[in-house]
Amino acid sequence: MSAPSIFDPPAGEPRHVLCVGAAVLDTLFRVRVLPQGQGKVLPYDMLQIAEGMASSAAYAVVRLGGKASLWGAVGRDETGDRIVRELDNAGIHVDGMLHVESARSAVSTILVDDDGERLIVPFYDPKLHHAVKKFTAADVAAFDAVLVDVRWPALAFQVLKTARAMGKPAILDGDVAPDGIIEQLAPEATHIIFSEPAAERLTGSDDVAEMARRLKRRFDHAFVCVTAGAAGSHWFNEETGKIQHCPTISIKAVDTLAAGDIFHGAFALAVAEKMVAEDAIRFSSIAAAIKCELFGGRAGAPGRADVIRRSEPLQRF
Amino acid sequence: MSAPSIFDPPAGEPRHVLCVGAAVLDTLFRVRVLPQGQGKVLPYDMLQIAEGMASSAAYAVVRLGGKASLWGAVGRDETGDRIVRELDNAGIHVDGMLHVESARSAVSTILVDDDGERLIVPFYDPKLHHAVKKFTAADVAAFDAVLVDVRWPALAFQVLKTARAMGKPAILDGDVAPDGIIEQLAPEATHIIFSEPAAERLTGSDDVAEMARRLKRRFDHAFVCVTAGAAGSHWFNEETGKIQHCPTISIKAVDTLAAGDIFHGAFALAVAEKMVAEDAIRFSSIAAAIKCELFGGRAGAPGRADVIRRSEPLQRF
Repeated sequence: MSAPSIFDPPAGEPRHVLCVGAAVLDTLFRVRVLPQGQGKVLPYDMLQIAEGMASSAAYAVVRLGGKASLWGAVGRDETGDRIVRELDNAGIHVDGMLHVESARSAVSTILVDDDGERLIVPFYDPKLHHAVKKFTAADVAAFDAVLVDVRWPALAFQVLKTARAMGKPAILDGDVAPDGIIEQLAPEATHIIFSEPAAERLTGSDDVAEMARRLKRRFDHAFVCVTAGAAGSHWFNEETGKIQHCPTISIKAVDTLAAGDIFHGAFALAVAEKMVAEDAIRFSSIAAAIKCELFGGRAGAPGRADVIRRSEPLQRF
Repeated sequence: MSAPSIFDPPAGEPRHVLCVGAAVLDTLFRVRVLPQGQGKVLPYDMLQIAEGMASSAAYAVVRLGGKASLWGAVGRDETGDRIVRELDNAGIHVDGMLHVESARSAVSTILVDDDGERLIVPFYDPKLHHAVKKFTAADVAAFDAVLVDVRWPALAFQVLKTARAMGKPAILDGDVAPDGIIEQLAPEATHIIFSEPAAERLTGSDDVAEMARRLKRRFDHAFVCVTAGAAGSHWFNEETGKIQHCPTISIKAVDTLAAGDIFHGAFALAVAEKMVAEDAIRFSSIAAAIKCELFGGRAGAPGRADVIRRSEPLQRF
């Protein structure tokens, strides 16, 4: 039997996280070198997988032993059926998914080269997120935390607001979004995890610690963190009143696709489990780092035992 | 009622063409400009469609009023089911398709920019075409012509050989292929339609008429033609003993994807209908040209009435 870890799940039922946002059929190609303009590139590996920001986060929650529900929209087409079926098979609760009659499901092609660089071609039908899924406060009451991405802002706004009013963690995946979306959603969030590119756009700084400092000043009602891949995360520690750096574990990155989403899912579960902030950030960093060691987008999301095992050297300091 | 045309179908039952080869799920994205290296490209249109060389040719046969059967291989996966279902819905006979247990279905992403330039990322599982579909001479006897592409060479070889031995038209889509494939298949073909890039590779010439001349010298048992897009086709006229040029109609090209395949399908049907060579090439050129006016790969294949209508100015000369 292994020693107890600060990352062990709490007693009782697994915590239940609601994830709101993107659900896409991704086609991933591994290529030696990314293409420059026209021609033909022959990939040496390929994977089709249903994922997307909220979907991959939900999968991370499931892999880490939590319960995840996904509210997203797909078209009423073959691709939409496949997205929902795959996410269902992955253990995510999909009964809250919306099938939009007149819209096409989202699809995306991603080329990943041997240096881990990416070319992304995402297609979203604007009609997919025109309507807002109807829900009641009672629907949200069932969850221990909510996590929203920027893909379906009108629904994300209402879910954050409802969860926050109930005193539940309301987490925003603060990724690059059309102008005004982050500004609209952030006031309703209790926790905001910014990606480095989004934080850079919002602050104009090129220093991650400084980005976190400025974002905390701007959104001081919320827990604020900026993730920066291999460079680790910077977050504002309410106890010390300072920006704190959390390094991540050292890995050889094969595929960073969905790493941010795995971070968000792990973080939402950690917060739902009432892990202290420092531990939650570390837990999420390790989960996201391990994901990068495997090709296949969200498919590389680690189980809890893996995160605990890989966290041990860090815990000795 | 419209005037009779040399392109009218013959009396009796529609002619039946067997197409052998590629069956792929393509994802087409329309982009303003093709990407250069890493980053994100936002397409303004998207289409997923089951096609591929032999599949698109089979669709052209159906659109032009013929009957088409497809022998190709897909994996036993969701994508494979979708490919077969879509081609079936398109009117192609798919009962001869092989579902390969341990292989993944072929998928491809194609980006088309506003100048009609393309970036193609095709993925073929090598295991998909390891086995050769079993068939008897009686199976081939049912068809009026066979058309094979270079995707499944072992099967293509046997089908060409069988058809040729029965005195049936045995047509080879001579596209770019791994070394030795064209050389292996060509001797069994009665008709070979080379693409310009393949002809260039095989002859080392950069002049299309010269390519056709050299290829005819090399494969003198067969009807030989080299297609060169907007520049028309060059083919060897047995009656005159000379290379003849067939111009095509003038169009604004929006999407040339599958244009070659539409040419091959139209040509196979024309030959099955015993159209004379000159008419068959013109018929195929016009069908292929019309296809280029629409975005959507094989979906742009024209009906017979369209080809006849667009052929009229040409016939006046």
